[in-house]
Amino acid sequence: MLPQIWPAVLTLGWILFAISAGEGVMALVALATEDGHAEEFGVSAAVTAVVAGGCVLTTRGRQFQLRFRDATLLTVVAWIMVPAFAALPLIAEPVNLSLVDAYFEMVSGITTTGATVMVGLDDTAKSVLLWRSFSQWIGGIGIIGFAIVILPFLKIGGMQLFRLEFTERSEKSLPRMRSIAIAVVEIYVTLTAACFVVYWMLGMTPFDALNHAMTTICTAGFSTHDASFAHFDSAALEWAAILFMILGALPFLSLLRMLRGGSLQDRFDTQVTTFVSVVAILVAILALWLFIALDFPADAALTKAAFNVVSIATTTGYASADYVLWGTFAAVWFFALSFMGGCTGSTAGAIKIFRFKVMYAVVRQHVQRSIYPHVVAPIRYGRRVIPDEQAASVGVFVFIYLLAFAGMAIVMAALGMGGETSISIAASTIGNIGPGIGEVIGPAGNFSSLPDAAKIVMCLGMIMGRLEILAVLIMFMPSFYR
Amino acid sequence: MLPQIWPAVLTLGWILFAISAGEGVMALVALATEDGHAEEFGVSAAVTAVVAGGCVLTTRGRQFQLRFRDATLLTVVAWIMVPAFAALPLIAEPVNLSLVDAYFEMVSGITTTGATVMVGLDDTAKSVLLWRSFSQWIGGIGIIGFAIVILPFLKIGGMQLFRLEFTERSEKSLPRMRSIAIAVVEIYVTLTAACFVVYWMLGMTPFDALNHAMTTICTAGFSTHDASFAHFDSAALEWAAILFMILGALPFLSLLRMLRGGSLQDRFDTQVTTFVSVVAILVAILALWLFIALDFPADAALTKAAFNVVSIATTTGYASADYVLWGTFAAVWFFALSFMGGCTGSTAGAIKIFRFKVMYAVVRQHVQRSIYPHVVAPIRYGRRVIPDEQAASVGVFVFIYLLAFAGMAIVMAALGMGGETSISIAASTIGNIGPGIGEVIGPAGNFSSLPDAAKIVMCLGMIMGRLEILAVLIMFMPSFYR
Repeated sequence: MLPQIWPAVLTLGWILFAISAGEGVMALVALATEDGHAEEFGVSAAVTAVVAGGCVLTTRGRQFQLRFRDATLLTVVAWIMVPAFAALPLIAEPVNLSLVDAYFEMVSGITTTGATVMVGLDDTAKSVLLWRSFSQWIGGIGIIGFAIVILPFLKIGGMQLFRLEFTERSEKSLPRMRSIAIAVVEIYVTLTAACFVVYWMLGMTPFDALNHAMTTICTAGFSTHDASFAHFDSAALEWAAILFMILGALPFLSLLRMLRGGSLQDRFDTQVTTFVSVVAILVAILALWLFIALDFPADAALTKAAFNVVSIATTTGYASADYVLWGTFAAVWFFALSFMGGCTGSTAGAIKIFRFKVMYAVVRQHVQRSIYPHVVAPIRYGRRVIPDEQAASVGVFVFIYLLAFAGMAIVMAALGMGGETSISIAASTIGNIGPGIGEVIGPAGNFSSLPDAAKIVMCLGMIMGRLEILAVLIMFMPSFYR
Repeated sequence: MLPQIWPAVLTLGWILFAISAGEGVMALVALATEDGHAEEFGVSAAVTAVVAGGCVLTTRGRQFQLRFRDATLLTVVAWIMVPAFAALPLIAEPVNLSLVDAYFEMVSGITTTGATVMVGLDDTAKSVLLWRSFSQWIGGIGIIGFAIVILPFLKIGGMQLFRLEFTERSEKSLPRMRSIAIAVVEIYVTLTAACFVVYWMLGMTPFDALNHAMTTICTAGFSTHDASFAHFDSAALEWAAILFMILGALPFLSLLRMLRGGSLQDRFDTQVTTFVSVVAILVAILALWLFIALDFPADAALTKAAFNVVSIATTTGYASADYVLWGTFAAVWFFALSFMGGCTGSTAGAIKIFRFKVMYAVVRQHVQRSIYPHVVAPIRYGRRVIPDEQAASVGVFVFIYLLAFAGMAIVMAALGMGGETSISIAASTIGNIGPGIGEVIGPAGNFSSLPDAAKIVMCLGMIMGRLEILAVLIMFMPSFYR
């Protein structure tokens, strides 16, 4: 029973039409701003539209149903193929990136990672900057859909916990699914608009506000300035970004429930409170350290600590200060933080806080059992009892995640990166964060100097990290195709 | 129901008598070699004997039974207290180490870690060198006893897998346990003797052969020369050490079964074959790298790769080359290797190979389940089916181990160590390996330059790593004492 490729081809076709439309809009932007990029965006839009049309047409007249296996295939194929078409405008003159660089930039965009190979952003054409920001924004809504609709059915990484209650029962599930999807998109658009208005009112130009609003909500981190958020040098803007990064890292279904009302226990997902409290504690410790050990003024210590901890914890990757200069303690601190991640069902990457909650519950249960062998203590997530199988599934995810991290660090070292850089690239890439630690890839650095082989491996790492690794791995299992 | 302290006090008394006897023997050695250390060893022996006597006498006339909880308490107390008494000879003139340094050296000894703060070993008195080697040798047999007798009953870290078949049944278990203990000690002594003879025949002085035999079998790594194994510059000796390090990292119960015969499936523990195969593959890859990328001659590439991989994989920590000079790939390679560890039931530390086997089986099961939701595929370890609870227990251990590593790296960074050094110290200490990566603590380095606070934290890390972390952690749970 081979997975049918037709549903994947058809859906890919529609996604490519969206990309083509985006490129078309950028061509108009380029015409309006007369920045000389109209032609490349126009040609890219046409090429993408032709391929999209081809995809859709070849599926005409075929009968098929989207099954879970096809959805998995579709997702992996989409996250590999879409960046290739989105990269077309960057390959042509005048941006003129190499094939590898252009693909890297767009994988970093679509996966909402935020690592960039482009330097001189301040002088880059507006259409190109907007396209980069748009790639992250569209990648963000894509991953939310993946996390809500597909992941819970893969029985991997403990995502079973977040299966929607109604989806297994009736034929009514499709309309409900559609209404949820529309509501989530509405929230996403509304938050982006709100972020845009706030950024604008606090002093950004409308163009900067639009770009940063798009890359804040999806916790991605592309900026329109080489200096990232440090360019604005505004505590007010940093606090606004802190708020919207956190909102972007919360589960969108929880946001939906909060807006729609309902009983209180429905409205709050326990990962939200945990995430916010953990971030608050981590900010407090780092702020104290900056205040006491590095003699920061109290307000600067709090702002810088909050902005940078939230930026890494939500896997956004904006920089408002070169924390590499804060010494080893801060470096190790940010490195450890890069494994945490936000809430599931959001645009944040990395291991994600609910898995730490489940692991903590499992550890507690085991320690209790080792003291009182006969006590039956179920593992809980919030009020729910978790079956052992799901808890094990979380453990497997964490293990695979760390193995992927270790494997990637070893490959990076073999490709000639330094020790710190290797380890940091691996954590930052698989966690979809963006910047790392060290001179080369720190918040003040840039990925352009890395060898092509490293960039290609990083593309693989970003896509695997984005799709929760196991979704990609099962594609390589022979039994997937039997 | 407080744990009874009396069994712990009594057993500690007997262990201290053994330490006192060892110090007495060293006093005789010092007298025979006229190295001027007779007095410090004599006084230490006397002080230790008085405390030992006190421990034994206070328990006279009391009725008690050793229960699991008391055994746990005993183990933790013993691994904290014994190094203090073993350190007495190093504090006094003429060795004259600081309190922290002396305790560190003996914790590193008893936990078979092998990190040293002593420099100028080549000129150090023979009695002192012998005492260091003896501390590792006695710590090695201690940990084997702990792993065979106590750990399987704690239901932590998946050690339940290795519970002896007979121990839960009858009143015959005590004599059988005693006969097993005697047999294991016999194997330990025999292997040490064999190692001594081989080292001697291959060119070591009898004194060097004795010391290195004692610290090879327990996979610990103290040497009598600052240059460690590189001092001898002999490929033959390195291959002999490779053989005995691997023997020391095999489960001693398996060695016992092999010697006693019985059916084949009893004789082989599946972790043995996995460990040996994995080590062989890792050696082959590194040897190829040395041969191709660093232009080593073929024989040197194989010998150096085999010696250093086996030294780290078995958590011994001897150095035959400064692998820091082999570049980043080798550094990251050895760093990743420092998490692996040998077989359980041996003297090797770190995560241990059977846990990777169990995790692999769990991952496989989950991937299969995500493809075929209705297939029932039990998790197997060798031929045995593992209950989900034990598999989860393994996962919990790995998670806690990595958390302990991360926490320790952060503390080290906060104490002012550099990034690489912090991470490397954490991995090396909790894995009971010894040397790390980087100039300060690399195979050519020494721990003496570290600040006292770092050394104290490392003592804690070595003891926690040695006792499989959770055995120490449950002591801090309030429910342990209820």
